[in-house]
Amino acid sequence: MRKKIVIIGGGFGGLSAAKEFNDFDADITLIDKTNYHLFQPLLYQVATAALSPADIAAPIRAVLNKQKNTTVVMDEVTAIDRVNKKVITKGSEYSFDYLIIAIGSSHSYFGKDEWEKNAPGLKTLNDALNIREKILLSLESAEKMNNPEETIKYLTFVIVGGGPTGVEMAGAIAEIVKISMMKDFRNINSEMTKVYLIEALPRLLTAYPEDLYEIAKKDLETLGVEVLLNTMVVDVNDEGVALKDKFIPTKNIIWAAGNTVSPLLKSLNTELDKAGGVIVNPDLSLKDDSNIFVIGDAAHLKDKKGNMLPGIAPVAMQEGRYAAGIVKEGKDADLRESFKYIDKGTMATIGRAKAICYIGGLKFTGFFAWLIWCVIHIFFLISFRNRFKVMAEWAWYYITFRHGIRLITGHPEKQEEIRNSNTPD
Amino acid sequence: MRKKIVIIGGGFGGLSAAKEFNDFDADITLIDKTNYHLFQPLLYQVATAALSPADIAAPIRAVLNKQKNTTVVMDEVTAIDRVNKKVITKGSEYSFDYLIIAIGSSHSYFGKDEWEKNAPGLKTLNDALNIREKILLSLESAEKMNNPEETIKYLTFVIVGGGPTGVEMAGAIAEIVKISMMKDFRNINSEMTKVYLIEALPRLLTAYPEDLYEIAKKDLETLGVEVLLNTMVVDVNDEGVALKDKFIPTKNIIWAAGNTVSPLLKSLNTELDKAGGVIVNPDLSLKDDSNIFVIGDAAHLKDKKGNMLPGIAPVAMQEGRYAAGIVKEGKDADLRESFKYIDKGTMATIGRAKAICYIGGLKFTGFFAWLIWCVIHIFFLISFRNRFKVMAEWAWYYITFRHGIRLITGHPEKQEEIRNSNTPD
Repeated sequence: MRKKIVIIGGGFGGLSAAKEFNDFDADITLIDKTNYHLFQPLLYQVATAALSPADIAAPIRAVLNKQKNTTVVMDEVTAIDRVNKKVITKGSEYSFDYLIIAIGSSHSYFGKDEWEKNAPGLKTLNDALNIREKILLSLESAEKMNNPEETIKYLTFVIVGGGPTGVEMAGAIAEIVKISMMKDFRNINSEMTKVYLIEALPRLLTAYPEDLYEIAKKDLETLGVEVLLNTMVVDVNDEGVALKDKFIPTKNIIWAAGNTVSPLLKSLNTELDKAGGVIVNPDLSLKDDSNIFVIGDAAHLKDKKGNMLPGIAPVAMQEGRYAAGIVKEGKDADLRESFKYIDKGTMATIGRAKAICYIGGLKFTGFFAWLIWCVIHIFFLISFRNRFKVMAEWAWYYITFRHGIRLITGHPEKQEEIRNSNTPD
Repeated sequence: MRKKIVIIGGGFGGLSAAKEFNDFDADITLIDKTNYHLFQPLLYQVATAALSPADIAAPIRAVLNKQKNTTVVMDEVTAIDRVNKKVITKGSEYSFDYLIIAIGSSHSYFGKDEWEKNAPGLKTLNDALNIREKILLSLESAEKMNNPEETIKYLTFVIVGGGPTGVEMAGAIAEIVKISMMKDFRNINSEMTKVYLIEALPRLLTAYPEDLYEIAKKDLETLGVEVLLNTMVVDVNDEGVALKDKFIPTKNIIWAAGNTVSPLLKSLNTELDKAGGVIVNPDLSLKDDSNIFVIGDAAHLKDKKGNMLPGIAPVAMQEGRYAAGIVKEGKDADLRESFKYIDKGTMATIGRAKAICYIGGLKFTGFFAWLIWCVIHIFFLISFRNRFKVMAEWAWYYITFRHGIRLITGHPEKQEEIRNSNTPD
């Protein structure tokens, strides 16, 4: 009988695994909650009105449509039944001989889940659209107000977490509210806007060399971002962010700190780490089941030096291809070669036309680093079509300094609220 | 004192009026419920996953940002107080010396407003995103089902109304469900899909010459659309559409029939027609107030032959420029020249690479008409940026026959419902 292979998740890990099974003689089922693969590293550009959702997302069906052994299902997995070798979804179930779990991670509020309402994270396309809407509606609200104390709340932006996502968001937001959009308004201006980047550790971008981090921090400050290091968030509420010795009144908080994995993994009944990730064998299989693999952000695996592999796209992609390779070979667990991550470098943009890159031990900064960043990201975008469109967007943006995708759509009830929120003049 | 001019609505009429006031010595305020101007003739392409929202919408602020005499407000008008010359919004009010009302129209359900839930219209960007989501989720649901009777409901698409919007929607949907997307699915195919176009009158496209209509009908039928003429909709419910002698089971109904104007106009206390439109003077001013103008779909005005001017973009734009011109001249009502509409032609596309055009008495059909359609629509798109992107999209689509913008975003609760809806296999 043909083997049944189920992959949960159509992100970088799951999709790489699925593609590796091209022409393999088996029935492959890929299950994802959404109908698209998301190019997550550019998600902050959707949140800041620089790109359209379709520029960084491709329908999973379309990516895999020529792979006749593969069925794509839009469904949500609720449990994994190891005993009967079945994946249980909301309305159905899928038997497997091999299972690859690539469900990614979401932000952790360190036990304060009630903060999420006021401080949304940036993991999904809906998150990005919600944040975009929030930023744009805040500017619209501020433009209409004549109460300075209220106005300041709408013009203050706080980003919590100084990793790559936080740094890129802070830079992009500063650019919008300090430079590119302000000329369109009559009652508010860039001196009235404030952007804070808050990090609990003594420095930003801990995965980068010290001197690159220094440059990134200076670039952010040049854009008008106030960087607060060694700073813990004590509370988040409707009125703003409380720090140990300060309260920042704001309606705009974006959470880019901490990581946690879906509770789904508990149904595996295997060893998990504190963040909920599965502690896997060197071949990415479960400690007690060599036919089930966990890859990407959901896996807990250390390199030779004892460092956890980071939750980034290149790790997930290499793991996806590796796990699929193991399944294809069909070797027993004790004959499998261990997974080895090959670090090809790391990079982050700071606003328009600046970036820092750390590639093969070499460091690049400024405009040249930004060009490298552009080329690499364009290259890795899923389809030629998106590459072409994103290139055009960036070129246009670089020339004109205009954010094009400034549409407030969705959530009519929230828009309603904002429209009602202006004070009489 | 500087005159105060208020414009309600940032559509084709309102925006054309606002631009005409460039450099005019007055304070102009443009109020719109949304933050963008929408290129409505291409809305059906967003609804059918061919274009992104940002391709056909431009932030009103950005369009008018160099016009220093003009303030843009995102707000909803609730009443017009003619006595005190004030426009009342949800949270504020705006005094005016001259008022231009350009609020457009929405679909009419002929008194059966309860049909709207199951048969949404296509007037706003949110409508288009909702319809796109509905179509895509229907295909996802059908792919997962193994109950043929249920499946057919998700694969049947009914468009009510045989005007340009209905014809263009029917053509575009047929193309998706009969040709372009089906290769991505494993369990459903194009033979299982049905597309109906329902029209109460004996023919489609009543504004077009008879022979062009015949060609359009044949083109639609070639694409697989079943055109039902002389057919009234008797009922719309969760299970489908009831006609006089037939019930069509379907989860996908799109309403493109009838027109009605916002009840806001009642607060003008002036003469309205049956659809709620304002019966205006030949200079577009109110019968009893020469400083208030109504333009576009909200105005009821007849040409010399006694025909109502149609609710289309060219009429609204010409009226907007005309009304602004009248205000700028500042002439008394009895000295004003009447508005004259110059008909430059009319056109509609039928699926990919086919169209019908009727321009200056000349008729064009097929691929050549489609090229004319492309050029004219590209030309009228708001900014160069959008033109360039849309051209790229269309070229890509023409070459590859692929709909790119197939993302299911928004409405997590609805997606949830669909994910739960599959029957166990």
